[in-house]
Amino acid sequence: MTDCIFCRIIDGSIPCSKVYEDEWVFAFKDIQPKAEVHVLVIPKLHIERLDHLDSSHAELITHMMLILPELAKSQGLDNGFRTIINTGPGGGQEVGHLHIHLLGGSNLPGFH
Amino acid sequence: MTDCIFCRIIDGSIPCSKVYEDEWVFAFKDIQPKAEVHVLVIPKLHIERLDHLDSSHAELITHMMLILPELAKSQGLDNGFRTIINTGPGGGQEVGHLHIHLLGGSNLPGFH
Repeated sequence: MTDCIFCRIIDGSIPCSKVYEDEWVFAFKDIQPKAEVHVLVIPKLHIERLDHLDSSHAELITHMMLILPELAKSQGLDNGFRTIINTGPGGGQEVGHLHIHLLGGSNLPGFH
Repeated sequence: MTDCIFCRIIDGSIPCSKVYEDEWVFAFKDIQPKAEVHVLVIPKLHIERLDHLDSSHAELITHMMLILPELAKSQGLDNGFRTIINTGPGGGQEVGHLHIHLLGGSNLPGFH
């Protein structure tokens, strides 16, 4: 059994509040939301970090980026949203499975 | 002449501190840095927002995402980095030309 917490969320062995799932990606609500809306969008493939992607992942990368606005709309974020990727300890990455933070609504972290 | 400030940075009519340029993208230092390292990575093509991308931009999207770790390394961010995309007023987007904030070093904005 994998010890990656996000792989275990994908396979259902750890429960989550699922928002979306397709062939390539899985999306669920962050259990410690940093904003009114805080969804994590992850590839089903276990890729540890953004800098582990290469050109063989072109289709996955395109799909992940194009699905973000759709997920934002599904969460009621008609006025816009913020997406954040943390890479490595210097970027504040806390789980070793690539994830895109999709944030919106009140209490948006980051720029002011 | 375009009135897009980022298009004018690309064409050289507004000066910038350029970090990188290739066929697809242009990268330069943010003039009001929110962290020790703060670079803006933009497509040369005038695309207003993340949610204006579609599958016809697959090659551009892949290239933009894969260049980020290389640009981070070129800025000395060997320990990691943060990337942020703001989309629309609700996401805090301030310039109507798609841009990825590449941040690292001390004073990283966002999550703590």
